[in-house]
Amino acid sequence: VTDSAPSLAAAVLSGSRRALARALTWVENEHPDSAALLSTLYPHGGRAWVVGITGAPGTGKSSLVTALALRLRQQGETVAILAVDPTSPFTGGAILGDRIRMRDLSGDSGVFIRSMATRGSLGGLARTTRDAIRVLDAAGFDRVLVETVGAGQSEVDIARAAQTTVVVEAPGLGDDVQAIKAGILEIADVLAVNKADRAGAENTVRALRAMLELGHPTQRNRMVNHHGQRMSAEAPTQDDHEAELWVPPLVRTVATREATPENDGIGDLLDAIDRHRAHLTHADGDKLRQRQRGRIEGELLDRLSHALMARLLAALPAGTLEAAIDDVQSRQRSPHHAVQSLLDSAGKAAQPNGV
Amino acid sequence: VTDSAPSLAAAVLSGSRRALARALTWVENEHPDSAALLSTLYPHGGRAWVVGITGAPGTGKSSLVTALALRLRQQGETVAILAVDPTSPFTGGAILGDRIRMRDLSGDSGVFIRSMATRGSLGGLARTTRDAIRVLDAAGFDRVLVETVGAGQSEVDIARAAQTTVVVEAPGLGDDVQAIKAGILEIADVLAVNKADRAGAENTVRALRAMLELGHPTQRNRMVNHHGQRMSAEAPTQDDHEAELWVPPLVRTVATREATPENDGIGDLLDAIDRHRAHLTHADGDKLRQRQRGRIEGELLDRLSHALMARLLAALPAGTLEAAIDDVQSRQRSPHHAVQSLLDSAGKAAQPNGV
Repeated sequence: VTDSAPSLAAAVLSGSRRALARALTWVENEHPDSAALLSTLYPHGGRAWVVGITGAPGTGKSSLVTALALRLRQQGETVAILAVDPTSPFTGGAILGDRIRMRDLSGDSGVFIRSMATRGSLGGLARTTRDAIRVLDAAGFDRVLVETVGAGQSEVDIARAAQTTVVVEAPGLGDDVQAIKAGILEIADVLAVNKADRAGAENTVRALRAMLELGHPTQRNRMVNHHGQRMSAEAPTQDDHEAELWVPPLVRTVATREATPENDGIGDLLDAIDRHRAHLTHADGDKLRQRQRGRIEGELLDRLSHALMARLLAALPAGTLEAAIDDVQSRQRSPHHAVQSLLDSAGKAAQPNGV
Repeated sequence: VTDSAPSLAAAVLSGSRRALARALTWVENEHPDSAALLSTLYPHGGRAWVVGITGAPGTGKSSLVTALALRLRQQGETVAILAVDPTSPFTGGAILGDRIRMRDLSGDSGVFIRSMATRGSLGGLARTTRDAIRVLDAAGFDRVLVETVGAGQSEVDIARAAQTTVVVEAPGLGDDVQAIKAGILEIADVLAVNKADRAGAENTVRALRAMLELGHPTQRNRMVNHHGQRMSAEAPTQDDHEAELWVPPLVRTVATREATPENDGIGDLLDAIDRHRAHLTHADGDKLRQRQRGRIEGELLDRLSHALMARLLAALPAGTLEAAIDDVQSRQRSPHHAVQSLLDSAGKAAQPNGV
């Protein structure tokens, strides 16, 4: 494995797992050549079906992802698992179950597992996740399973990088309706009630059904819209259209070591995912293209905003931002004036090198 | 009332309610001269104590705000109420209770009430709220009460515009612990359990106490940190310091027409708010300045990012963004290349006029 973007890209494309791991590290660390690496890999992607799996801690989603991966392997599909933890390093805990998973899946070259945690900001994690998915996609995996802890805006952002999003619930996580956080249902393409063999599972199923029924087209539309506008760069969303036409199926799963393929519901889950895929890709994939378009726009606006800010902050002479904060705090300058003067300073500083 | 920023500002400063209403409309509609208006008003602000009051629908926070306003008026303080609804226009509903409130408070020139709803994006609403607070502050109100519906990231953003944030809970909103959304507790400077005369109030109080006890300094610190980083412009937060030293008091309130000043708990709530104010402002207000500094930095970065994006999108030749999305979708260009080329196009287009 060498250090240049083209040779690393070539090694990833040739199937080297070591190169793949290294490429993901570049992405995670924002290596200076990672943009070049990603640009070289990008034309080779677009084949993988990306499935996001999100749920609160305690829903057993790691086991569910492992079971899903095993089933996909039995069908002969190659699988990459990307476990993203938006709550770490704050809880100190990375996604659990990696070790158990490794035992179940290790020694199989058709499976690749990688964890990523927050480093810096959640916006940064969403960008990194998108890039990591693209690396795995270019590396030729049939499925990329992105597992994330349900923790608010973060998994909404991360779900936007997936083509099918599975929201995992489980009985016994407190009041059945309240436990389903507002906003989570709207990102669900498929709902899984895991631990369906436990007491209270039917209550959870009933509560979810009631919420789904509340979400009739018009209202769903509004809610999705609401989300669209909560997104980073105030981009419009194209998700509304297909939300009207797809009713998230609800499947019961039991992802434990004791469950058998006959009663674990993993087949049902996979069916639901594949029906959603067929829904998006049928008729020349018009729905998929529409959804992708809105997401690409959101991503470009987010990256533009990030790049502009990085450039501006780099162009500002040392101490300028601090001085502006002082002026606003002492009321010598309004925030609006301060912003204008920061833009002017950065402009002047950047002039010799162009914009 | 005339149309120029200086004369409108003068009228606001002289106490005209009509000018005040008009100034707020300018802010809400992003009138082209609103930045000039705000800059003229800004040096006259800094006197009002801004109290944010947030809670889920059904907690009775509108009645609580009304009761608080009446009590403040009895003390001879002037009060502005800004009711911000981040969920509208999606639910179609503005903040309820305005009509009842008007009846209780109307005819008193020491009270001013204004509602604002989402128009465009939540980021936009947070900016508009900050500006509206500044107008009310400059207009000379002793207190500005900002009431907002608990709806996720939005009220966190809006709480950052307040000096004291009151989080309102109520019994009977589902499971006591689950109903308290993650993230809400961390913004609370004061906790109010409203409808404290109802069954289950003691359960709610107990659940909140347990959560407060969990939030010992180190953990609280992490959580606040987490929030800081969820904030818009990835700014650091200065809130951590005082979070370690202030334990949010818990007060029981009964904001109904039947309650009397002896048993409604409003006096306790006001006491708690004033103790928090004293905590922040004691010893030359060092804590307050620190908190403000972090918030001003966050606001400047947010406004810079917003201004840069507006400028970039204006500078892009028509169709450039759409063409870039097409290229990314067809994989002719990676997102990273597309962003670079959009920056280049905007730069070239802007060159004749400087950055």
